[in-house]
Amino acid sequence: MASMAASDSGNINLNVGGEAVKGPDPSETTIDIIDRDPANMNAHLKVSFEEIFAEPHPTIFSFDGVWTTSYTVFRNTKIWCYRISTLLCAVPAAFVWGIYFALLACCSIWCCRPCTRAFEMELQCFKGFYAAIIGTFVRPCYEAMGFLFYNFRIFLHNGGGPKDNSACS
Amino acid sequence: MASMAASDSGNINLNVGGEAVKGPDPSETTIDIIDRDPANMNAHLKVSFEEIFAEPHPTIFSFDGVWTTSYTVFRNTKIWCYRISTLLCAVPAAFVWGIYFALLACCSIWCCRPCTRAFEMELQCFKGFYAAIIGTFVRPCYEAMGFLFYNFRIFLHNGGGPKDNSACS
Amino acid sequence: MASMAASDSGNINLNVGGEAVKGPDPSETTIDIIDRDPANMNAHLKVSFEEIFAEPHPTIFSFDGVWTTSYTVFRNTKIWCYRISTLLCAVPAAFVWGIYFALLACCSIWCCRPCTRAFEMELQCFKGFYAAIIGTFVRPCYEAMGFLFYNFRIFLHNGGGPKDNSACS
Amino acid sequence: MASMAASDSGNINLNVGGEAVKGPDPSETTIDIIDRDPANMNAHLKVSFEEIFAEPHPTIFSFDGVWTTSYTVFRNTKIWCYRISTLLCAVPAAFVWGIYFALLACCSIWCCRPCTRAFEMELQCFKGFYAAIIGTFVRPCYEAMGFLFYNFRIFLHNGGGPKDNSACS
Amino acid sequence: MASMAASDSGNINLNVGGEAVKGPDPSETTIDIIDRDPANMNAHLKVSFEEIFAEPHPTIFSFDGVWTTSYTVFRNTKIWCYRISTLLCAVPAAFVWGIYFALLACCSIWCCRPCTRAFEMELQCFKGFYAAIIGTFVRPCYEAMGFLFYNFRIFLHNGGGPKDNSACS
Amino acid sequence: MASMAASDSGNINLNVGGEAVKGPDPSETTIDIIDRDPANMNAHLKVSFEEIFAEPHPTIFSFDGVWTTSYTVFRNTKIWCYRISTLLCAVPAAFVWGIYFALLACCSIWCCRPCTRAFEMELQCFKGFYAAIIGTFVRPCYEAMGFLFYNFRIFLHNGGGPKDNSACS
Amino acid sequence: MASMAASDSGNINLNVGGEAVKGPDPSETTIDIIDRDPANMNAHLKVSFEEIFAEPHPTIFSFDGVWTTSYTVFRNTKIWCYRISTLLCAVPAAFVWGIYFALLACCSIWCCRPCTRAFEMELQCFKGFYAAIIGTFVRPCYEAMGFLFYNFRIFLHNGGGPKDNSACS
Amino acid sequence: MASMAASDSGNINLNVGGEAVKGPDPSETTIDIIDRDPANMNAHLKVSFEEIFAEPHPTIFSFDGVWTTSYTVFRNTKIWCYRISTLLCAVPAAFVWGIYFALLACCSIWCCRPCTRAFEMELQCFKGFYAAIIGTFVRPCYEAMGFLFYNFRIFLHNGGGPKDNSACS
Amino acid sequence: MASMAASDSGNINLNVGGEAVKGPDPSETTIDIIDRDPANMNAHLKVSFEEIFAEPHPTIFSFDGVWTTSYTVFRNTKIWCYRISTLLCAVPAAFVWGIYFALLACCSIWCCRPCTRAFEMELQCFKGFYAAIIGTFVRPCYEAMGFLFYNFRIFLHNGGGPKDNSACS
Amino acid sequence: MASMAASDSGNINLNVGGEAVKGPDPSETTIDIIDRDPANMNAHLKVSFEEIFAEPHPTIFSFDGVWTTSYTVFRNTKIWCYRISTLLCAVPAAFVWGIYFALLACCSIWCCRPCTRAFEMELQCFKGFYAAIIGTFVRPCYEAMGFLFYNFRIFLHNGGGPKDNSACS
Amino acid sequence: MASMAASDSGNINLNVGGEAVKGPDPSETTIDIIDRDPANMNAHLKVSFEEIFAEPHPTIFSFDGVWTTSYTVFRNTKIWCYRISTLLCAVPAAFVWGIYFALLACCSIWCCRPCTRAFEMELQCFKGFYAAIIGTFVRPCYEAMGFLFYNFRIFLHNGGGPKDNSACS
Repeated sequence: MASMAASDSGNINLNVGGEAVKGPDPSETTIDIIDRDPANMNAHLKVSFEEIFAEPHPTIFSFDGVWTTSYTVFRNTKIWCYRISTLLCAVPAAFVWGIYFALLACCSIWCCRPCTRAFEMELQCFKGFYAAIIGTFVRPCYEAMGFLFYNFRIFLHNGGGPKDNSACS
Repeated sequence: MASMAASDSGNINLNVGGEAVKGPDPSETTIDIIDRDPANMNAHLKVSFEEIFAEPHPTIFSFDGVWTTSYTVFRNTKIWCYRISTLLCAVPAAFVWGIYFALLACCSIWCCRPCTRAFEMELQCFKGFYAAIIGTFVRPCYEAMGFLFYNFRIFLHNGGGPKDNSACS
Repeated sequence: MASMAASDSGNINLNVGGEAVKGPDPSETTIDIIDRDPANMNAHLKVSFEEIFAEPHPTIFSFDGVWTTSYTVFRNTKIWCYRISTLLCAVPAAFVWGIYFALLACCSIWCCRPCTRAFEMELQCFKGFYAAIIGTFVRPCYEAMGFLFYNFRIFLHNGGGPKDNSACS
Repeated sequence: MASMAASDSGNINLNVGGEAVKGPDPSETTIDIIDRDPANMNAHLKVSFEEIFAEPHPTIFSFDGVWTTSYTVFRNTKIWCYRISTLLCAVPAAFVWGIYFALLACCSIWCCRPCTRAFEMELQCFKGFYAAIIGTFVRPCYEAMGFLFYNFRIFLHNGGGPKDNSACS
Repeated sequence: MASMAASDSGNINLNVGGEAVKGPDPSETTIDIIDRDPANMNAHLKVSFEEIFAEPHPTIFSFDGVWTTSYTVFRNTKIWCYRISTLLCAVPAAFVWGIYFALLACCSIWCCRPCTRAFEMELQCFKGFYAAIIGTFVRPCYEAMGFLFYNFRIFLHNGGGPKDNSACS
Repeated sequence: MASMAASDSGNINLNVGGEAVKGPDPSETTIDIIDRDPANMNAHLKVSFEEIFAEPHPTIFSFDGVWTTSYTVFRNTKIWCYRISTLLCAVPAAFVWGIYFALLACCSIWCCRPCTRAFEMELQCFKGFYAAIIGTFVRPCYEAMGFLFYNFRIFLHNGGGPKDNSACS
Repeated sequence: MASMAASDSGNINLNVGGEAVKGPDPSETTIDIIDRDPANMNAHLKVSFEEIFAEPHPTIFSFDGVWTTSYTVFRNTKIWCYRISTLLCAVPAAFVWGIYFALLACCSIWCCRPCTRAFEMELQCFKGFYAAIIGTFVRPCYEAMGFLFYNFRIFLHNGGGPKDNSACS
Repeated sequence: MASMAASDSGNINLNVGGEAVKGPDPSETTIDIIDRDPANMNAHLKVSFEEIFAEPHPTIFSFDGVWTTSYTVFRNTKIWCYRISTLLCAVPAAFVWGIYFALLACCSIWCCRPCTRAFEMELQCFKGFYAAIIGTFVRPCYEAMGFLFYNFRIFLHNGGGPKDNSACS
Repeated sequence: MASMAASDSGNINLNVGGEAVKGPDPSETTIDIIDRDPANMNAHLKVSFEEIFAEPHPTIFSFDGVWTTSYTVFRNTKIWCYRISTLLCAVPAAFVWGIYFALLACCSIWCCRPCTRAFEMELQCFKGFYAAIIGTFVRPCYEAMGFLFYNFRIFLHNGGGPKDNSACS
Repeated sequence: MASMAASDSGNINLNVGGEAVKGPDPSETTIDIIDRDPANMNAHLKVSFEEIFAEPHPTIFSFDGVWTTSYTVFRNTKIWCYRISTLLCAVPAAFVWGIYFALLACCSIWCCRPCTRAFEMELQCFKGFYAAIIGTFVRPCYEAMGFLFYNFRIFLHNGGGPKDNSACS
Repeated sequence: MASMAASDSGNINLNVGGEAVKGPDPSETTIDIIDRDPANMNAHLKVSFEEIFAEPHPTIFSFDGVWTTSYTVFRNTKIWCYRISTLLCAVPAAFVWGIYFALLACCSIWCCRPCTRAFEMELQCFKGFYAAIIGTFVRPCYEAMGFLFYNFRIFLHNGGGPKDNSACS
């Protein structure tokens, strides 16, 4: 149980989570910038030019120049358009989502979970009454209905049809 | 059966639960502050930056600086926002839930449970009448309906179709 | 058959239940005060702090002081709140339930049970009429309907489809 | 065939049931006063304090005195309340039920049973007409409907799907 | 064939049933007065005190005197109440039922049975017409409907799921 | 082929049924008067005192005299009541039924049976038209509907549940 | 091919059916007069006194004279009533049915049968159109519906219930 | 290929069907006059006196003379009535049916059959459109519905019932 | 590739289908005039006198002359009626059907088939959208519904019925 | 990658599809003129005279001249009618379909396919929400309903019917 | 982690994705211009003249010149029409789709995915309440209904039909 002394924040001297091994010190902000999707979470967004445009047969080939230019245009447009849009909105989005997830966790831990637990306890009482009523009035009714299938009798005949059903002809 | 003498509370001298082995003495308030979820109860709240944001392919990579800054912003915003909110509302919440669970237990033990037990006894009487009526009037009715399946006769033919159903052609 | 002489109540001298081996003498009022739920009847009410509150990850850890204080507050609030409430209402509740169960037993033994028994006897008469009507009018009707399944004929072909159903193409 | 002389009733000298071996002589009124429920008929009324009240965990233990007093109060209240109520109403109830069961037996033996027997005889006539009508008009109708299942032909293929259902693609 | 001479009735000299071996001579009126229900026909009316009243546990035992008195009261009340009621109404009931069963037998033998027999003969005619209509119009209709099940083809795959149903994802 | 000369009737000299071996000569009117129900046709009418009245237990035994008198009264009332009623109505009933059955046989032989036979011949014509229409229009329709079951494909898995249906959780 | 010369009819000299071996010459009118129902066609009309009237038990035996007289009256009434009625109506009935069956055969042979045959030929045309429409529009529709059963997957578990369906408790 | 010269008809000299082996020359008009139903086509019209009229028992035998006369009357009435009616209408009927079948064949060969063939060709076009629409829109819909049966899981228990379904009692 | 020079038509000199081996030169017009239905296409029109008219029994034989004349009349009427009608309408019918089938082929080859092909291509686009919507919204819905069958539990008992279902009697 | 120099078109100098091996040079326009349907695509249009017209029996043979003339007329009418119609409309049709298929390919490649791809990406988002709602609210509901089949208990009896179902007779 | 210096763009000096191995440098714009559909994505657009037009039989062959000209016209029309249309619209389409896919990726990564994740967390709370209600109220109800199938009893008979169901005939 280690108390986190005022080392880097300078004004607050708090203990969080005992020993600070797993604690998030703000200095270790280096995230892997090469493999940015280790869990393949957004794999459905990975599309290249070849996966969108295809000319299947020489009789429907466009001119070589048209084909090559299309490729270059599509590729660069997509790359730079994405970069600029993220330059504008990525950091504010991260800030908003950070606040949102923190409040969601706080509310879920200190309010929802105890509430659910208490609700389950209260239901135990009603469960007793309910089970007694069901077991007394509903179950015998369906058990009695179940005697509908009491005399299910099957005659199996292998390899031959009815010989003498001439009564109906 | 040990009487809990006025040792730490100073004014009340009571016997609770005989020997005080399992009794909650207020001095042992140290809870594990490292592993705060031993039963993995709130595992669904454990999310990191990599589980929320992902860029799957180099063609949709934002600038390195944007990516790194987003990570730092999200991480710190979430940590400090949660800490401040709990600083404000955790202790009052614990106080309220403590009262609530105590009253719930009291009410459930001294009122609901005996009530359920008595209700079950009373239902035994009605069960007798009900079972007699069901057994006399409903069951024979369905048993008679069950004779619908009395002459279920199946002719199985392996490997050949009907030869002579030319009457219908 | 032992007559219970005026030993401890002082004014009444009665015989109850022959030999007083199982009879409840008021002197043996000591109930087990350590294990107060031998049948695990109210096991669903047994909740501790760890089962209600949990912080799954260091990024959503509150300050150590907040966490420890919450634990102490919840624990003591729950214990003392329960003790005070039972101090007020436990004995009256036991008194009321004692009267209720006694009257319930008396009413059930001397009134309901004989009534059920007599009702069963009376139903035997109606059962005779009812079974005769069912057996005469309802059963033959369903037996005749059951001839619907009389000519159930199945041709099984293993391993080959129909060759020549070209009439429909 | 023994005639029961005026031995104990003093004024009536009757023959009942031939030899008086099984006959009820009023002198043998001693019933087992220890085991008063040999057939376990009212087992559902057997409840003790431990089966109704339970405190599952030390954190929800009431004070020892409260717990012990509750036990004593419940036990004695229930015992004496039951004794007093039966002292008032048990004998009149036994008297009323005696008359009721006697009249019920008399009515059932000399009226209901012969009536049921005669009713069964009368139904035999209607049964003849009914069975003839059913057998002539209803049964052939359902037998003809049953030819719906006459050509049930199943082709079983093990281990392979349809190869060439390309007509529908 | 023996003629039953005027031996005991004194005024009528008739022949009934040839030899009088099985014939009912009024002198043999001695019926078994010990076992009055050889066929266990009214077994459901056989109830004793122990089958109606039961106190399952010492905590709900009435006083010994109350219990014993109840037994005596119930037993004697029931016996004498039944005896007196049968003394009043048994013989008239036997007389009425004698007349009823005799007339029922007469009517059933000389009127109902021949009527049923004649009705069956008349139905044979209608049966011919009916069976011809059914066999001509109804049966081919259902046989044609039965071709619904003509191409029932099942492909069974053991141990593996569908590999390539990616067309629908 | 023997002609039955005027031997016993005195005025009519007719030939009936060739040789008179099986012919009914009115002199052989002796019917078995001991066993009057050789085919057990009316067995349901055979009831004795013991099958109608029964006292199952000594506590519900009537006085011996009442029981014996009831038996005598019932037995004799039933016998004589039946004898007198048949004395009045048996012979007229036999006369009426004789005429009825004779006319029924005459009508059935010379009218109904030929009518049924002719009706069957006429239906053969309609059957041809009907079967052609059914075979042309109705049967192909249901055969086409039957292709509903053409691709019934079943995957059987023994011993294991679905592993990866996590898409829906 | 023999021509039937005017041998017995005297005025017509015709050839019918070539050789006259099977031809009906009016001289061979002798029909079997002993066994008048060789095919057991009207077996349901064969009833005797014992099959209609029955007295099952000596307690419901009529007087011997009544029984014997009833037998004689029924037997003779039935025989003579039938003989007289047939004497009046048998020959006219035979005449009428002879004409009816002859005209029925003529009409059926020269009119109905060719009509049916021609109708079948005409239906062949419509069958072609109809089968083409069914095969084009109806069959693919139901084949596509049949893909409802394409993924029928069954998991079989022998000998054990579900272990962990605690999610729903 | 033989030309049928004017041999017997005298005025027309035509070639029909090449070699005249199977051709119908009018001189071979001799048909089998003994067996006039070689295919048993009208077997249902073959009825004799014994198949229509039957007297099952000597008690319902008519007089011998009545029986013999009925036989003679029926037989001769039927034979001569049929002969006369065919004498009047057989040849005209044959003439009319000859014309009808010839025109029917002509119309069917030169009009209906080509029409059917052309109709089938035209349907091939619509079949293409229809199959494409069905395969695109209807089939995936039902395939998706078929996932209803995807998790069909069966637990089989041999030889034992459920032990602990006491939750519902 | 042979050009078909102006050999027999005299005015047109065209190349059709390269080498003229299979080409229809107008000189080879000889068709088989003996077997005019090699594919048994119109087999249902082949009817003779014996298949239409039949007299099953000597009692319903017409006179020999009537039978023979009917045969001759039917046979000749049918033959000549057909010959004359075809003489009038066969060649015009062949001319009309020739034009019709030529135009049908032309329209089908140059218009319908390409249209179908293009339609299939266009449907591929819609198929993509449709399959995505189905796979996203409809399939999970039915998969969730399929959990209805998740707990299908069967207890099989061989050779014995339920012993103790006395609760319902 | 070969650039296709202005070799045959004279005015345009373009590169299409790199090396011109598979490229369509306008000089290779020779298509197989003998086998004009290598894929049997229009096989249903191949009809000869014998497949349309058939005379099944000598009794319905037309005159030889009529038959031969019909053949010649049908054959030549069909051939020349088709040739003339294609001479008029084949080349314009090929021109129109060429333009249509080119535009269809262009529109499908550059517009529809990318649109479908983007639509699939957008659906992934909604799929997440939808699957969560389904899994939370719909699935537990059907799982609970599935307990309907929880106690499916089957008793199998081989080789014998029910012995004692006399309660209902 | 390599910073991408201002090498080719000239004005921006950024780091994207660490090491620039997989990074898209604008100089590598050479796409495979021979095989333009490596994934066979648009295979359904690959149609040649032989797949659209077919003349199945010499009797429906157009003139050789017509056939050859049609081929040439279709082929060249299709090739040049496609080339010209792509020359006009391919590059703008690639530009538009580039922007669209970039914005779609940005929106999906920074907005939709976190939203989905948060939504799943919130649903966990409701899931707890919902599962408790379902498990308490819905499940026992269906379990009780399930007793409908409790007494499913089947009698299997191999090889023989019912012998004595004469009660209904």
